[in-house]
Amino acid sequence: MKLYSMPSSGNSYKVRLLAALLGLRLDIRDVENGSAELAEARAEGRLPFGKAPVLELDDGTLLPESNAILWFLGEGTRFVPSDAVLRAQMLGWMFWEQYSHEPVIAVRAALRVYPERAAQATPERMADLLDRGHAALDRMEARLAAHDWLVGDGPTLADISLHAYTHTAADRGGFDMARFPGIGRWLERIARLPGYVGLHG
Amino acid sequence: MKLYSMPSSGNSYKVRLLAALLGLRLDIRDVENGSAELAEARAEGRLPFGKAPVLELDDGTLLPESNAILWFLGEGTRFVPSDAVLRAQMLGWMFWEQYSHEPVIAVRAALRVYPERAAQATPERMADLLDRGHAALDRMEARLAAHDWLVGDGPTLADISLHAYTHTAADRGGFDMARFPGIGRWLERIARLPGYVGLHG
Repeated sequence: MKLYSMPSSGNSYKVRLLAALLGLRLDIRDVENGSAELAEARAEGRLPFGKAPVLELDDGTLLPESNAILWFLGEGTRFVPSDAVLRAQMLGWMFWEQYSHEPVIAVRAALRVYPERAAQATPERMADLLDRGHAALDRMEARLAAHDWLVGDGPTLADISLHAYTHTAADRGGFDMARFPGIGRWLERIARLPGYVGLHG
Repeated sequence: MKLYSMPSSGNSYKVRLLAALLGLRLDIRDVENGSAELAEARAEGRLPFGKAPVLELDDGTLLPESNAILWFLGEGTRFVPSDAVLRAQMLGWMFWEQYSHEPVIAVRAALRVYPERAAQATPERMADLLDRGHAALDRMEARLAAHDWLVGDGPTLADISLHAYTHTAADRGGFDMARFPGIGRWLERIARLPGYVGLHG
């Protein structure tokens, strides 16, 4: 299987992390932001929604959307609970990640990190994203202050998904992570999983 | 099972539509935008992410996020493909719905429909949402111009999820649906499914 993966993107990193934890070898095709490779993958129709990551199966079938790829690779493994209620709660966190966490925490990081986005980083927008990001992190802290994992009593796809942009929220996003000690312990717990890799390998 | 449901919201409607198609009776608790019932459900901790819909199981377990509730109610029914690749493609459309469709198409509708949002509906923002909404609808049209359903050859949770805000995109959102004949035929196809109900029952 080929993975069209943007090295600097948390959405692509999620998939690389799950593959590493599962000991699964993917044929990684780097399509960095602004690169000729990204433009080429787009032009060749390899990115159905125009963005990475995309998993290409051996028969050419294309699977877009980071969390759907996590599901595809994770189904039947220890990272997807066998209990139907836990499975739905896991998906609930993953939908929340795409609606309420990534568009705030990843976007604030992108506005700080990518030079071509700097003009959009007005003080009002950055302050609003900071407040909304802390509010999103409050929701995670409410769970993680008293539990080791987001769902049930072991790591699931929800933890892998939300780890991606949370573990860089301080450095890249400028969020005040000292407010969230439960999240801090959870990040350390994930980094100790056998096979763990960071954003840059 | 109880469903905390916002009558005017497409996210809540998705769940009511799936329940109707499955002949499943839910105990519906209306929590309309701005109502005392919504404030009460929030204060009582019934809305883990602060918003509707939420499914409350008979043992009190709370399942937030519209698409995760669809998954919970739909797993094992004809609306979830038995093939793993189709299942992942279905989830891909549903994650895309929450990231790229709802935040544009539902938000533009809300800015037009809810009087308290009118001050945020600047001409620049409305024009930007119009362009981005048409671009999202282009992605759906690319599939639906030549296929009856978003995934495989029958209706799935992806169709139910994306129907919610697409079928009101013209009236409520002000989008030009005449550009998208494939989507138009698909909306009619969904409205003919046995048990179908519209947004207002």
